[in-house]
Amino acid sequence: MTLSGPILVVGTGLLGTSVGLACRRAGITVYLDDVHAAHRRTAASLGAGVPWHGEPVELVVVAVPPDHVAAVIADALERTDAFVTDVGSVKGQPLHEIGARRDAVRYVGGHPMAGSERSGPLAASSALFDGRPWAVAPHAGSLPEAVAAVEALVAACGAVPHRLDPDDHDLAVARTSHLPQLLSVLMAAQLADAPEEHLALSGQGVRDVTRIAASDPELWVQIVDGNAEALGALLHAVREDLDRLIAAVTAGEREALEGLFARGVAGTVAIPGKHGGPAVPTATVFVSIPDHPGELARLFADAGAAGVNIEDVRIDHDPGREMGLVEVVVAEDRAEALHDALESRGWVTHR
Amino acid sequence: MTLSGPILVVGTGLLGTSVGLACRRAGITVYLDDVHAAHRRTAASLGAGVPWHGEPVELVVVAVPPDHVAAVIADALERTDAFVTDVGSVKGQPLHEIGARRDAVRYVGGHPMAGSERSGPLAASSALFDGRPWAVAPHAGSLPEAVAAVEALVAACGAVPHRLDPDDHDLAVARTSHLPQLLSVLMAAQLADAPEEHLALSGQGVRDVTRIAASDPELWVQIVDGNAEALGALLHAVREDLDRLIAAVTAGEREALEGLFARGVAGTVAIPGKHGGPAVPTATVFVSIPDHPGELARLFADAGAAGVNIEDVRIDHDPGREMGLVEVVVAEDRAEALHDALESRGWVTHR
Repeated sequence: MTLSGPILVVGTGLLGTSVGLACRRAGITVYLDDVHAAHRRTAASLGAGVPWHGEPVELVVVAVPPDHVAAVIADALERTDAFVTDVGSVKGQPLHEIGARRDAVRYVGGHPMAGSERSGPLAASSALFDGRPWAVAPHAGSLPEAVAAVEALVAACGAVPHRLDPDDHDLAVARTSHLPQLLSVLMAAQLADAPEEHLALSGQGVRDVTRIAASDPELWVQIVDGNAEALGALLHAVREDLDRLIAAVTAGEREALEGLFARGVAGTVAIPGKHGGPAVPTATVFVSIPDHPGELARLFADAGAAGVNIEDVRIDHDPGREMGLVEVVVAEDRAEALHDALESRGWVTHR
Repeated sequence: MTLSGPILVVGTGLLGTSVGLACRRAGITVYLDDVHAAHRRTAASLGAGVPWHGEPVELVVVAVPPDHVAAVIADALERTDAFVTDVGSVKGQPLHEIGARRDAVRYVGGHPMAGSERSGPLAASSALFDGRPWAVAPHAGSLPEAVAAVEALVAACGAVPHRLDPDDHDLAVARTSHLPQLLSVLMAAQLADAPEEHLALSGQGVRDVTRIAASDPELWVQIVDGNAEALGALLHAVREDLDRLIAAVTAGEREALEGLFARGVAGTVAIPGKHGGPAVPTATVFVSIPDHPGELARLFADAGAAGVNIEDVRIDHDPGREMGLVEVVVAEDRAEALHDALESRGWVTHR
């Protein structure tokens, strides 16, 4: 089915406003509601929809902070006859609170995998969900028509629906989103009081591992608290590995260390590759570039002229480096061609 | 002082060959030695130096795997009258084995912060160390002339010397390099046996946190084992935080969670910014681009035309996304200008 609308978006932060913009792009009428009138005005001024005054709607999208999701879903079920979904990071907790309601048959949980590190309507975009996974998590009583309406919303937003049961969803994000967040924070916490001369040796590795630890603590406390059960089991598994690691380091047991490192390599390989396909073997070409405007443009123009598609780019931030180092990741069988093309154009490269 | 040479590089893997290339670039005569004749031949054919037949040298650079560093340092002290340094990841362990030798006064430990994820002479480059931190770690008995020679080597390689005492060095890299490696591995290990439909929800965060877990296990086992004491203390500190985290998650103690997240944010801020200066406030502009050759070139050409220097670039790899999302990081006060310039040139951007 397609979504004919109108829809109502409750909560006009980053996600709600982006849903509004994406649905407007798809020609769907969008109403907006928010307890913060200023947010709603901003979202409306960006073209995400118009203020809601009780008009009937086909679907309500609840996009409020985790702590308020269940109450706002219940309110939407009460005040409208519409199907209701949400975009929260956790699916079991709201269901626990509203699942016993007879009208909960009109509710189907949802969760787009996008946008958690930024916030507010000004950060919104109609393109935020393009091609992203969007979990659709019906409960046992969800009406098939409600599920169809939510999947139509996902399609209208340009995203790719992944249907999961609510508990399964929470286990999945505990492992692929919440646990990485917590381990990143545990690492970053060990840097907070480190001597400056120790931190001067920081390379790209520690920067990558700790990047997401800079995210909004208030939001993350709500997410972690809302998925405590699934996270608890994983954290215990990590503690068992950590205990084994400490024992192996202390006793110099190399075989135990090797086993853990091998599981780590296997884990990195298990993450699906670009565009959901199997991970393509890639190779990296390192290019030194002067750190001023225009040089990256020249580099990518030369790479483009060589006809090589760039899979990933990383700019090296190591301290003290006046000459930037750019890592250009391409399919393994194109690395040689890129390397030669860049060298012939005068770039200093290595592999 | 400057290094007049000649120098001898023992071990012609990535680091040794790169030292040779960098010193050749600086006009210094370089001799090469390696128990693997094929590696030495490859390094020589790349222009990193010429085979050693016992000629006198000013400085020996030991660039062999961690397990062999101490023995090769001892051998170099015995077979030559030269100053001796190494490029190993750990400084206390070799010193423990050779520190009692009378000729250890000619030894000064070193450690360039570069290159641990790649291996072999073919990956080498004369530019590998340009602008990188390079720890110089004299022991209590090191001759001042030996320290000066090693710092001259660092300068010849284009790197920035950071003088640290050997134990202090090991504490520093335990925290900024070895611990991030282990936490990345602990996270990745939890993905190894995860259901495919759970991994389908993987976003950029888990990819960043686990990237370095793909590194060579054999090398890392030697590094971790060689720095067991410093790492042990840090791993215990992480376990204490993890225990507190598990208790807080289990009991829903939000204040404890907030405290840990706040320490994480503080840790990310403590990492020095680009070029060793204080971290500059940055903002990110998100740009949607078609995933084929030439589009990145067009994007960076347009950014360059706007006169905005790009601090960092990240290409989004989320599965299912046919339209690529590029995150362009610029100084906070230039984000608006970049956003407007790109929009005016027809790019779909958001902030």
